[in-house]
Amino acid sequence: MNQKLFFTALIVLFVLSGVSHYAHFGTVTEFIISAIAILFVAGFLGKATESVAHYAGQRLGGFLNATFGNAAELIIAIFLVREGLFSMVKASITGSIIGNLLLVLGLSVFLGGLKFKEQRFNVQLASHNSSLMILSVIALAIPAIFISTQHFSTQQSKMLSITIAVILIIAYILWLIFSMVTHKDVLADKEETTPDHGEDPAWSKGISILFLVLATVMTAFVSEWLVGTLHTFTADFGLSEVFVGAFLIAIVGNAAEHSAAVMLAMKNKIGAAVEIAIGSSLQIALFVSPVLILVSTLFGPTMDIVFTPIELTAIAVSVFIAKSISSDGRTNWYEGALLLIVYVILGFSFYLV
Amino acid sequence: MNQKLFFTALIVLFVLSGVSHYAHFGTVTEFIISAIAILFVAGFLGKATESVAHYAGQRLGGFLNATFGNAAELIIAIFLVREGLFSMVKASITGSIIGNLLLVLGLSVFLGGLKFKEQRFNVQLASHNSSLMILSVIALAIPAIFISTQHFSTQQSKMLSITIAVILIIAYILWLIFSMVTHKDVLADKEETTPDHGEDPAWSKGISILFLVLATVMTAFVSEWLVGTLHTFTADFGLSEVFVGAFLIAIVGNAAEHSAAVMLAMKNKIGAAVEIAIGSSLQIALFVSPVLILVSTLFGPTMDIVFTPIELTAIAVSVFIAKSISSDGRTNWYEGALLLIVYVILGFSFYLV
Amino acid sequence: MNQKLFFTALIVLFVLSGVSHYAHFGTVTEFIISAIAILFVAGFLGKATESVAHYAGQRLGGFLNATFGNAAELIIAIFLVREGLFSMVKASITGSIIGNLLLVLGLSVFLGGLKFKEQRFNVQLASHNSSLMILSVIALAIPAIFISTQHFSTQQSKMLSITIAVILIIAYILWLIFSMVTHKDVLADKEETTPDHGEDPAWSKGISILFLVLATVMTAFVSEWLVGTLHTFTADFGLSEVFVGAFLIAIVGNAAEHSAAVMLAMKNKIGAAVEIAIGSSLQIALFVSPVLILVSTLFGPTMDIVFTPIELTAIAVSVFIAKSISSDGRTNWYEGALLLIVYVILGFSFYLV
Repeated sequence: MNQKLFFTALIVLFVLSGVSHYAHFGTVTEFIISAIAILFVAGFLGKATESVAHYAGQRLGGFLNATFGNAAELIIAIFLVREGLFSMVKASITGSIIGNLLLVLGLSVFLGGLKFKEQRFNVQLASHNSSLMILSVIALAIPAIFISTQHFSTQQSKMLSITIAVILIIAYILWLIFSMVTHKDVLADKEETTPDHGEDPAWSKGISILFLVLATVMTAFVSEWLVGTLHTFTADFGLSEVFVGAFLIAIVGNAAEHSAAVMLAMKNKIGAAVEIAIGSSLQIALFVSPVLILVSTLFGPTMDIVFTPIELTAIAVSVFIAKSISSDGRTNWYEGALLLIVYVILGFSFYLV
Repeated sequence: MNQKLFFTALIVLFVLSGVSHYAHFGTVTEFIISAIAILFVAGFLGKATESVAHYAGQRLGGFLNATFGNAAELIIAIFLVREGLFSMVKASITGSIIGNLLLVLGLSVFLGGLKFKEQRFNVQLASHNSSLMILSVIALAIPAIFISTQHFSTQQSKMLSITIAVILIIAYILWLIFSMVTHKDVLADKEETTPDHGEDPAWSKGISILFLVLATVMTAFVSEWLVGTLHTFTADFGLSEVFVGAFLIAIVGNAAEHSAAVMLAMKNKIGAAVEIAIGSSLQIALFVSPVLILVSTLFGPTMDIVFTPIELTAIAVSVFIAKSISSDGRTNWYEGALLLIVYVILGFSFYLV
Repeated sequence: MNQKLFFTALIVLFVLSGVSHYAHFGTVTEFIISAIAILFVAGFLGKATESVAHYAGQRLGGFLNATFGNAAELIIAIFLVREGLFSMVKASITGSIIGNLLLVLGLSVFLGGLKFKEQRFNVQLASHNSSLMILSVIALAIPAIFISTQHFSTQQSKMLSITIAVILIIAYILWLIFSMVTHKDVLADKEETTPDHGEDPAWSKGISILFLVLATVMTAFVSEWLVGTLHTFTADFGLSEVFVGAFLIAIVGNAAEHSAAVMLAMKNKIGAAVEIAIGSSLQIALFVSPVLILVSTLFGPTMDIVFTPIELTAIAVSVFIAKSISSDGRTNWYEGALLLIVYVILGFSFYLV
């Protein structure tokens, strides 16, 4: 998209979203406008992060890119946490993970596969990612299993949640050290991904930092306006908090990754598409979700890390099918179709809940 | 077996089975005769399908072979559905899946492995099949998990069952397109399987079609006679519906695949044996079981897709051990023994239920 | 360690442990002394087994080494069974399996990985082991799932436990035949492991046998003294039987493997370290646990094979992460860190129970 057009749309939508919020246009209108606005502010945040990352040098830049990659989503979720909508937060975490592993990866592999008979990527990366995905499932499932079978007290459950949150953040930091410092060379998918990161940034260093701050503030505002509508919105349409969190919020919050990954796959850069989809879901599981638990302790009652059985089922199922499909480093359209089929099955089941 | 001898046995057993049914020889006698008769009519149906497939050309022929491969089983199950024996139907689906993955595959790998130190097959095929097997487990497990944790209404449960049935059939059709049209060459296990399918058929085109119709009708009759005995038969021997469905019906209905796969394995064509065993279990999960759900809506109350926890455990366990063993494209006698051991453990557990 | 020093420590600690037991030094003192003493008698038992194995020839020797490798643990567990501490026995089995797969393997891979960027081992061995580990999980999980969903009678549950125990022992014997007779060459990690087993033994044949008998008797005595303290010890510190079994007993009982595996990994013999860790956990699951069930029938009520849901979760989780990490035959420090992280999560969860 043309830059000038992008900025015009960004500003118009941001203003429109603010006006509709303060002038009480009605919940449905507010929801729709802020949902579209968030796509643009998230896109702006992404570009600003990339630009700052460029000036920060390779290592710190990679770290910034990896950690702020889901910043928009994290900001939305923080507002949900502040509102005490814990089950919607957890549903949106679930939705982001399965959305990345099934919808984003599925669409990329499917559309890429329609164009190219077989697409290939670095198997080593896939193998490491799959071990990390299994860790995520384990870390999210263990509290649920222990707490459901042992009748832990609230105090014990809180301690377990915070401890696991801290352990996950440590695992995430170690992963960054591993993939960006000690074993950077092993994991690279050289020919495929490098050109994309090598482009010259459009903005100067100062402007980039300014834009990063601005984009973060804008994202925060739009997120708050969006979250403000959800209560009434779910009630009006008879949709469950879980469905709204797991599908609407998750799709809106991840729209930037979606389009980026699909476009890369269509250019036969399936390795980069897989990295975005799986990397983003790992980041949600290993970084966003523990941070939200720690953040919740600042606002009042701690959000526990106990996902519902159907959320855990959805996460585990997505991880296993994604792992099975990505394990050989080759993809084709049917594998993409399988991922999308599992997404539809889960979506329909969540809809009925 | 000599053709003349086969046809004599087929006709004698068919007539005997009919006489024993209408003259009320006693349930045990009727069960035994019709169980033996079904082996022959299923064999006849298989030969007729292959012959028609030969004249239909490669693509349509492959489709016919794949889809009618479990026709005998489907026909038996339709009669069970008409009788409203839903739990026996689901047990027989379970039994067919685990029977193919553990007993057929186990015997083939074990006996083939006693003769040859190591047997190899196309890893790509194994990898694709394992993703499909995981899809089957997911599609069968999700309704059970959602329904057990969410107390769905009968209406919701029916909608979910029919939706998943339709999705599975779509997945199955896409798989046929993938494996027979767009990626036929990738999955072929050239040297191993081709010679078998290349034999000249024994019958002319007209005779083949006539025989296919005849065999289908005969299978339908014997299936009805067999199903008629099961109620009393289970009561007399104190066996549960689940055990009869999962082991007796499943073994009788799959006898043709069993002997074919084992014989191929002993000729060192382990790839073809694996294809029969895994392909047949995929067909049951992705095609036979959804068709039965849709068929049940014609007869009265819809059969839901909710398997019991132990059936799902049995299916999941079989899929994971079969996937683990077949994933490297090499087999040896111990891997066959492991599959058989798991079959015995499951069989004994089902027997105690 | 210097041999003379080792024997002096062994005798001093054995005598001290006996004196503290019979003179009632107090439970905590007795526990600490006998826990240290058991490290030395287990080490002595290991050396004696290896020496006898050397004289027994390669096949019988390999069998002796494999089967007596966990002799110290088996002896401790038999004393726990005699005391009727069934839940502690099962917790210690769980603890040994997860201790080997997560702590021993994790430390070896982590410390080895700090020294060497990437370590490699025979993938074929890893592949076979992973199928066996899945069998272990299946065999331990099936009774729990069937019994919990079907309300089996005590008699049925006993029958199922004994049957599965016998089947597991058969599977274990077949595995020994496979790995030491029919496919010995396929599984060998030639350059890495051979030199270690090829050392000349320090003792003559007669002395070796005498030492094996002596070491077994000493292990039995110290085990009895150790087990005698556990009841009071757990009560004094408010630790659950499960935590003591799964962590204290398991770490003390496996100390010999721990140090051996870590030292091998640091010498870049990661294949041998993986073999010790995974082999030892397989032995516990496929040999030690069924033997304990059969042994329990001699003392009175049969110990059933029904593990608690959290024990099964812990075992399944360990198997899947270990399988995922070892499946590519390469290891690095981060994979070791992941295993240790899962161990810490499980340890903390068990502590809270």
